[in-house]
Amino acid sequence: MTVPARGAAQRVADTLHRLEHDVDAWVATASPQGEPCMVPLSFLWDGSTLLFSTLDSNPTARNLAANGQARVAVGPTRDVVLMECAVETVPAAQLPPGVVEAFADKTGFRPGPRYVYLRMTPLRVQAWREVNELADRDLPPL
Amino acid sequence: MTVPARGAAQRVADTLHRLEHDVDAWVATASPQGEPCMVPLSFLWDGSTLLFSTLDSNPTARNLAANGQARVAVGPTRDVVLMECAVETVPAAQLPPGVVEAFADKTGFRPGPRYVYLRMTPLRVQAWREVNELADRDLPPL
Repeated sequence: MTVPARGAAQRVADTLHRLEHDVDAWVATASPQGEPCMVPLSFLWDGSTLLFSTLDSNPTARNLAANGQARVAVGPTRDVVLMECAVETVPAAQLPPGVVEAFADKTGFRPGPRYVYLRMTPLRVQAWREVNELADRDLPPL
Repeated sequence: MTVPARGAAQRVADTLHRLEHDVDAWVATASPQGEPCMVPLSFLWDGSTLLFSTLDSNPTARNLAANGQARVAVGPTRDVVLMECAVETVPAAQLPPGVVEAFADKTGFRPGPRYVYLRMTPLRVQAWREVNELADRDLPPL
């Protein structure tokens, strides 16, 4: 049985539900030399951006300090939310205390002194489940 | 309750089980200009390599034609198999007919004439579930 393709409004609603409730995402970055990197990281969604944190020496942090571009995937491979994001590296001291607490509460980990925060703004959002949803996978702005 | 960390032998067994039975993976690549790309793709494991297929005009195929490096993730974010792979682009005509059939049987799709096959050899394999498995995540060769 083929499940009918969702319309745009339903995909936006499902995407927002994932961003609010899912804990982990896959984060893909690239080095200036064109080497790919992909790791799972936990995030906090604030209604318009995703906040991540990782060690400042990790390839993800170094790649993003160099070019600020990430692909971010939330959900399993048959219920995909895939985003192109612009990324800003934010020192912990520049985050409001409430955000630091909210991040620790959501993700279950409290970044240490050598961690940076990465604030990711989705520039393009796609959502699809199976092949019949591929054609209209580009969503309107969230 | 913290689940004890698995030993290397168990992680290898679990990884091989995923490679044989999972259908989809996340594939991360990078353009020569350092733009990240990540997409979900289905694969066939032959005991030593993963075989994928995608349109020759897709960013994944173009990136891999340029530099042949991919990161591949199988499993969810809390049961990760993460691989650094060397990638060879293979025209369909160079694959034995049995492999083409096995690929279509496993993945449920039959690549058309504008598709290329991508044969990925894991150079480094990591497997972990939670934080207590991070330290020993590098596996011996499969």
